[in-house]
Amino acid sequence: MPHPCAFFLAQEWDSTNFSRPLLSIPYPLLPALTIFSMTATLPSYEEAAAIVARRAAELAGIAPTTEQIQLGEAAGRVLAAPVHADREMPPFPRSTRDGYAVRAEEANSGIALRVSGSIHAGDAPLPEPLASGTTWEIMTGAAVPAWANAVAMLEHVETGKEADAATIRLLPPRHLEPGENIVPLGAEAHTGDEIVSAGTRMTAAHLAAAAACGYAELTVFCKPRVAILTTGDELVAVNATPAPGQIRNSNSPMLAALVEQAGGQPLVLARPVADDEEELDAALEKAGRADMILLSGGVSAGRFDLVEPALTRRGASFHFTGARIQPGKPVVFGELEGSVRPRPFFGLPGNPISSAATFLLFAVPVLAALAGNTDSPPRFALARLKRTVKGNPNLTRFVPSVCDAASVEVVPVGSQGSGDVAAFAHANCFLVVPEGTAEIPAGEIVKILPF
Amino acid sequence: MPHPCAFFLAQEWDSTNFSRPLLSIPYPLLPALTIFSMTATLPSYEEAAAIVARRAAELAGIAPTTEQIQLGEAAGRVLAAPVHADREMPPFPRSTRDGYAVRAEEANSGIALRVSGSIHAGDAPLPEPLASGTTWEIMTGAAVPAWANAVAMLEHVETGKEADAATIRLLPPRHLEPGENIVPLGAEAHTGDEIVSAGTRMTAAHLAAAAACGYAELTVFCKPRVAILTTGDELVAVNATPAPGQIRNSNSPMLAALVEQAGGQPLVLARPVADDEEELDAALEKAGRADMILLSGGVSAGRFDLVEPALTRRGASFHFTGARIQPGKPVVFGELEGSVRPRPFFGLPGNPISSAATFLLFAVPVLAALAGNTDSPPRFALARLKRTVKGNPNLTRFVPSVCDAASVEVVPVGSQGSGDVAAFAHANCFLVVPEGTAEIPAGEIVKILPF
Repeated sequence: MPHPCAFFLAQEWDSTNFSRPLLSIPYPLLPALTIFSMTATLPSYEEAAAIVARRAAELAGIAPTTEQIQLGEAAGRVLAAPVHADREMPPFPRSTRDGYAVRAEEANSGIALRVSGSIHAGDAPLPEPLASGTTWEIMTGAAVPAWANAVAMLEHVETGKEADAATIRLLPPRHLEPGENIVPLGAEAHTGDEIVSAGTRMTAAHLAAAAACGYAELTVFCKPRVAILTTGDELVAVNATPAPGQIRNSNSPMLAALVEQAGGQPLVLARPVADDEEELDAALEKAGRADMILLSGGVSAGRFDLVEPALTRRGASFHFTGARIQPGKPVVFGELEGSVRPRPFFGLPGNPISSAATFLLFAVPVLAALAGNTDSPPRFALARLKRTVKGNPNLTRFVPSVCDAASVEVVPVGSQGSGDVAAFAHANCFLVVPEGTAEIPAGEIVKILPF
Repeated sequence: MPHPCAFFLAQEWDSTNFSRPLLSIPYPLLPALTIFSMTATLPSYEEAAAIVARRAAELAGIAPTTEQIQLGEAAGRVLAAPVHADREMPPFPRSTRDGYAVRAEEANSGIALRVSGSIHAGDAPLPEPLASGTTWEIMTGAAVPAWANAVAMLEHVETGKEADAATIRLLPPRHLEPGENIVPLGAEAHTGDEIVSAGTRMTAAHLAAAAACGYAELTVFCKPRVAILTTGDELVAVNATPAPGQIRNSNSPMLAALVEQAGGQPLVLARPVADDEEELDAALEKAGRADMILLSGGVSAGRFDLVEPALTRRGASFHFTGARIQPGKPVVFGELEGSVRPRPFFGLPGNPISSAATFLLFAVPVLAALAGNTDSPPRFALARLKRTVKGNPNLTRFVPSVCDAASVEVVPVGSQGSGDVAAFAHANCFLVVPEGTAEIPAGEIVKILPF
């Protein structure tokens, strides 16, 4: 497959190739300086994000397989066949108020109008047009009679009686414009209009629209299967007691939850993969049927990092191997060939905070593309910074932070580095400090990436 | 049950009581003016939100029942028993870098240090302390040997050889502080520390923390069951063909999705409830086992609005019946008595956009409280306004809008009122325009409520 990002492939991968033959040599040490003093040659966050966005757009062009599901199961799913209006919306001129259907000019003249009757929501539209000098009481959501061109709100009329008949009169200084409190027939959409496009990830609002159009079932794209391989000799399963020097595998459940949240189906390998070529090869083999592969750990500069060589052995091409971000600088993005379409992979740094940040920044848009979602960049928000934060001259920082839901003020949680899951458990977002920013003073509006 | 919000109960409910006896009289008209010109006496958005927050805090004090679940199923669930650290975090002094474990003062002196060996992540801590004049190669995540007090990064040393032994030397002008690139034993948390509190709604970050502490299972609160009753003669089921004057029930699937998103278990009544006292009574009877009830429709000012009287017949008390918001002004919040604890209900206006807005603003915090979540106000965010919006002197506006994920610019979608589901399908948030704001100019930072 000729690679669309061949420039980065060559530029980044050459360095990594250089280190590869050394991996089988137990000693002496790597010529470390030569290889790793290359932060400046890594793509910036914006460049890496652009590479991801471009590739995601290309991958989204290869449609995934589809399935039929019930409307009630559609939240979070990506629509494969658009929702069309099956009739005019609204299907009749709809009153938006409880009140009286009138001719505006008559009501504005201040005369008393005889109340001919009452129209509920759900009543068939009146067969007769509105006779002059008359009005119909009307409820919100009901069909406005023909020739009525406004609805006088209940609160804006006085009631009376004339020869046993109830009347209403628009109270001065109220004045009705033609069309007031009426949504005209077809004003929202016409029969056949596309109401929800294919490629949309369904929210509650889309479900409402699909229901209004009569879609009890929807055609959606199948969820992409995302293999999660956590690597590292130090990792033991959650239910194991770590030996001295070991820690539990916290990335698997974390990444599985993030994958589900992003619309994927996580396939978690039963146990962590050891730092061993054969184990890694076997794990990649098992991940063979996945649409996307997440590997965590084993991608930093150390000589025991076996992930990139293992991927290379399987014919991987690389979009980038590292980006100017903190945490997550060693993040790797590439692709393996697949039978139907390329299978993207991410090598995420092993520390949980780094893994989460790089997943949200880079893997989410690619996963969305595989899910058929045509437009899903990382979903940033703004917040007000509560405490001054420092930047880095050479890296974009993504600082684990907590944003208060009510005040929308954000403050870093303060952590002992990107392995500090105890601190991370107090965070609900990453705060973005752009590269080259010396500091952002308290009180400024900042970008955050909620999770 | 003596009611904690008796003031509002009396103030608001008296007016509604006044209208109730008239409901059985088919004609003549209601004395509309007397009853409904009361916007100014309704609570403001802030007052209504404060009532909800206060009552939510009280309800959160009555713990729901609990269940045991697998860690992998815990995302979005509310923790019932806290997660504690089962050992020091980190359990050993952890290297945050690939490099060399050194004594900082030795390394800073510029001498060549003999490399004694290599420490992987996962290796047991060295039995011997670090001998003077020596160093160990060390990988990210590995246990730093005793007496080493810093890790020199791979990128900051030059390698050499002395009498067949590999050496490294810290490259000037690099200087190591004691503690550099090491997280000390227990720096993140101590054995027994509470890492995730009961009452926390679990995100991926909490899952990582629970996994790190060895929780393969978690005790969570059972999801509150939320009955969804949509009312209105105009409504037909999604798979039915609406007769003239009718529309399909779009609120049931929409509210079900919102309830799930908020951590509840939706119980949707099979078909919409007609505007009929007996049908409504029967539906409320069926909803008897739910922890919370959502009724949509039937709460505005019209004379066919039967919801509040039906609730009153079941002994309901009301916190507010209306709020100074647009859309959603007729929103009703109250409670029915329950066997274990009170059962809150919301009467949501029938138009889908009003239903969604009032659910997100008021029902979400109460639902969170019933789920055992101790702190869950509506989750606002900030965004930059792309186009000037108008305010209302007497109401807080919540304008269906679309916020661009990358630029974080927000713009109203423009709709034909709160029944316009076609427009709503283009929105992903509500934009807040506070009461009394004439307009918010383009370019300002505004509050949004994403969904």
